[in-house]
Amino acid sequence: MSDSLQALARQLEQFAQARDWQQFHSPKNLASALVVEAGELLENFQWLTEDQSRALPPEKLLAVRKEVADVLLYLIQLSTALQIDPVKAAIEKLALNDLKYPADKVRGTSKKYDEL
Amino acid sequence: MSDSLQALARQLEQFAQARDWQQFHSPKNLASALVVEAGELLENFQWLTEDQSRALPPEKLLAVRKEVADVLLYLIQLSTALQIDPVKAAIEKLALNDLKYPADKVRGTSKKYDEL
Amino acid sequence: MSDSLQALARQLEQFAQARDWQQFHSPKNLASALVVEAGELLENFQWLTEDQSRALPPEKLLAVRKEVADVLLYLIQLSTALQIDPVKAAIEKLALNDLKYPADKVRGTSKKYDEL
Amino acid sequence: MSDSLQALARQLEQFAQARDWQQFHSPKNLASALVVEAGELLENFQWLTEDQSRALPPEKLLAVRKEVADVLLYLIQLSTALQIDPVKAAIEKLALNDLKYPADKVRGTSKKYDEL
Repeated sequence: MSDSLQALARQLEQFAQARDWQQFHSPKNLASALVVEAGELLENFQWLTEDQSRALPPEKLLAVRKEVADVLLYLIQLSTALQIDPVKAAIEKLALNDLKYPADKVRGTSKKYDEL
Repeated sequence: MSDSLQALARQLEQFAQARDWQQFHSPKNLASALVVEAGELLENFQWLTEDQSRALPPEKLLAVRKEVADVLLYLIQLSTALQIDPVKAAIEKLALNDLKYPADKVRGTSKKYDEL
Repeated sequence: MSDSLQALARQLEQFAQARDWQQFHSPKNLASALVVEAGELLENFQWLTEDQSRALPPEKLLAVRKEVADVLLYLIQLSTALQIDPVKAAIEKLALNDLKYPADKVRGTSKKYDEL
Repeated sequence: MSDSLQALARQLEQFAQARDWQQFHSPKNLASALVVEAGELLENFQWLTEDQSRALPPEKLLAVRKEVADVLLYLIQLSTALQIDPVKAAIEKLALNDLKYPADKVRGTSKKYDEL
């Protein structure tokens, strides 16, 4: 795992170890925790218009920031548990997406983004 | 944003820009996409026992790795859109958790993790 | 459980029993499956504007209908497993919401729905 | 929509109308709210073993019951908004599943449920 994420990964391992919480941190449970946090993140946006979501008031932005942190913390713990390098995986996935969605074929607004 | 994530963030911006997809990437939509990917991640684990989730067969691990990548890619895009540094946010959140759950108070198996 | 849902509940029990699948249907797993299906439901809307979501083309509406069905099927199975009557629970929750959000206090557009 | 759900659907319409909240209730937003509630439901199970999830203590069962209610309330509202009959959709989906997973082919424990 790369640089700053790796430092975080080590801290999270120590955090769980000091509390004897590794027993709860099966990949299955971590994946559940991750989707729960992703839901809490979305909760902040669910009744906003898209435009409102682009201009969050400070206290809402702070709440969103905390949920972003929680998602990342569980994503790192899941990656550690499964020995996945998430950044490397993301780089490879983005390269795949680049092939899957050729810019000159999908550009523009007339085509529906989700029906490519 | 820190190091390797920042490089990824820039690539994602170019990816979206080349396709004129920024119009779809409101924070609200990115948060939706993130929870959808987190659901797809969990799908891989939903019928497994915790023990099975600790010993995934290779092809399942590969599928999980792709979903981890997708979650990270949307988390980075959301962070960019809101000018959040997700690693910094995670470091701060972990420090808060450290205070919230003192190791000597929550350690051990007798206490339920989720009722602290 | 009430009427038509009860018939469906019985069919689902037979369905799982005939396949010896009850062993996988712990409340924990059913709750996971439910959120996974809810994610698949949201996937249909994630890049649409709110207005587009109000006027779905026929094939999209059909896809959404299937996901609505899946969510309901898991909700019923979870309810059966925990001996919850979901309709009764919903009636009671709506009554609570009625008290929590007095119409004359929260009516109108000036107040933000999610900060009541 | 069938019987008791239809009564609930009407009550929910009145509830939203009395508060002028229909403006927030686009299918897109209702689908978001549904997955958020499904996440809150799962939160109750995320650190439990499957066995623990089968024997919830009373106060936890009550919390779960409320989340089941919330999921159903949003599912009904989404169904109303899209003129879907969720029970009819579920009956049809179950009939499809019956064909898709023939009992004599998928029965038993040796085969993995999620790799059929």
